[in-house]
Amino acid sequence: MDTLDVPSGRPAGVPTPIPGDPRLARLSLNQRTTERWSVAEAVAGCVRAGLPAVGLWREPVQEIGVPAAARLVADAGLRVSSLCRGGFLTAADPQRWRQALDDNRRAIDEAAELAAACLVMVVGGLSEGSRDLAGARDRMADGIAELAPYAARRGVRLALEPMHPIFCADRGVLSTLGQALDLAERFPAEQVGVVVDTFHVWWDPDVLGQIARARGRIAGFQVCDWITPLPPDALLSRGMMGDGHIDFPLLRRAVERAGYTGDIEVEIFNADVWAADPDEVVATLARRYVTQVLPD
Amino acid sequence: MDTLDVPSGRPAGVPTPIPGDPRLARLSLNQRTTERWSVAEAVAGCVRAGLPAVGLWREPVQEIGVPAAARLVADAGLRVSSLCRGGFLTAADPQRWRQALDDNRRAIDEAAELAAACLVMVVGGLSEGSRDLAGARDRMADGIAELAPYAARRGVRLALEPMHPIFCADRGVLSTLGQALDLAERFPAEQVGVVVDTFHVWWDPDVLGQIARARGRIAGFQVCDWITPLPPDALLSRGMMGDGHIDFPLLRRAVERAGYTGDIEVEIFNADVWAADPDEVVATLARRYVTQVLPD
Repeated sequence: MDTLDVPSGRPAGVPTPIPGDPRLARLSLNQRTTERWSVAEAVAGCVRAGLPAVGLWREPVQEIGVPAAARLVADAGLRVSSLCRGGFLTAADPQRWRQALDDNRRAIDEAAELAAACLVMVVGGLSEGSRDLAGARDRMADGIAELAPYAARRGVRLALEPMHPIFCADRGVLSTLGQALDLAERFPAEQVGVVVDTFHVWWDPDVLGQIARARGRIAGFQVCDWITPLPPDALLSRGMMGDGHIDFPLLRRAVERAGYTGDIEVEIFNADVWAADPDEVVATLARRYVTQVLPD
Repeated sequence: MDTLDVPSGRPAGVPTPIPGDPRLARLSLNQRTTERWSVAEAVAGCVRAGLPAVGLWREPVQEIGVPAAARLVADAGLRVSSLCRGGFLTAADPQRWRQALDDNRRAIDEAAELAAACLVMVVGGLSEGSRDLAGARDRMADGIAELAPYAARRGVRLALEPMHPIFCADRGVLSTLGQALDLAERFPAEQVGVVVDTFHVWWDPDVLGQIARARGRIAGFQVCDWITPLPPDALLSRGMMGDGHIDFPLLRRAVERAGYTGDIEVEIFNADVWAADPDEVVATLARRYVTQVLPD
């Protein structure tokens, strides 16, 4: 992990912030950043490092059951900055689309029980063999319309995640923050918000304007870097903040100007990060958060 | 190449169109699709297959000299649908930026001598170590402003190519058709137009609106497919039409509704395509053009 700690042209040797450091007050570990950790291990790791929040994933939560996971985070005094993830609402087959809705209702129930700040919605890509992008986008919007009232009754906020266009075909047909807001604005702000993930939106010529427009709708803010050359597996192409090309302070300030005061979640899918010792990953991301994300 | 010829769910056994087939009247081979071919070989390959146009690249043109290349295409009666490429106008270092302008003036001269329909502009990515995306975009725009009058004097049309956001960091900070038009519209339409490349723009929620807006500005139309899983080298991730997720007739009709009547260039960077016999590649792309691009 040492090489990750000295991005070119940046000062090295920054001490790791210790628990109680006020600079950590909004830092959240997305569980997938330390992919091998169970919920219990991730919660314990956050406590050791002084992180006040964690972003959970449904699969590891289900391994121990939702009540046990909810107890773990509550006993540790952590906030759940998000539950990942609902969505995948683009199936052309009506039965599969209905099944996806059912699964999303379960995800909403889980988010409610975990008191998650939001349920992150990765909306899904094109159906197998389909080239009907507009149709997939329509079905995704119809699905959100079905789910929003249910989420509202459970006190859960859906967080639409615009995804980098690299994932449009196979993962998320919601491609820009503007498109996400066009959809979110059909619903009350407390029902449907958006996630701003630096990896997905940094390239957008209109990103600052759309973040400003998102006032009251920003349900989550996630950070990780865009690195080049892009790793061979596009799904694992995210980098530690500072290793790539994203101007984090620019985007953080924009999100804050738009009124967002919630947690800042570090979510990194990367084979090298996953191979490293998870405690070291958390220490590194806490340092990088301080040096790369927080500066004005 | 046979596997490429039977995309799932599509009828196989389409005969290859022969020279003189009116359906080939606007089909152009971008030279990089048959990467191992010299200019002479690409020109001869187009003639054998009945393609009336070719998109040339500067490097192979320079190998034989611009006058020789111009003579080859003229003697063969081919149109030059584009010269690839100018651009790379984002350098933060003033001297390198000036050098890039000089190189672009040479590219404009070459495009004039080749009577190319346009000079494709790949604008460049972030400078080494830079995270100043807005600055890179400003320098790119300043560069176009310097070059447009020079191009006009030579009778060459600059064609701004919005590039898929996957390339924003390292290749092209011009990321959407809307952004390209915002820049192009500062200049007379005959000086600065845009290239619509299906690979780069297909995901854009606003692509149809922006294509309509581009009336009078479309200097080129390039086709190739977005395939999944994305090949390990992002630069070689383009697929033969029909092997991926793009609805070609949708985009072709939009471009034609916007008044474009020029050539349709097939530009595919793909290791498998490059490994195949170039004549077979041309035969395949001619068939695919007929079955995947031309249908209404």
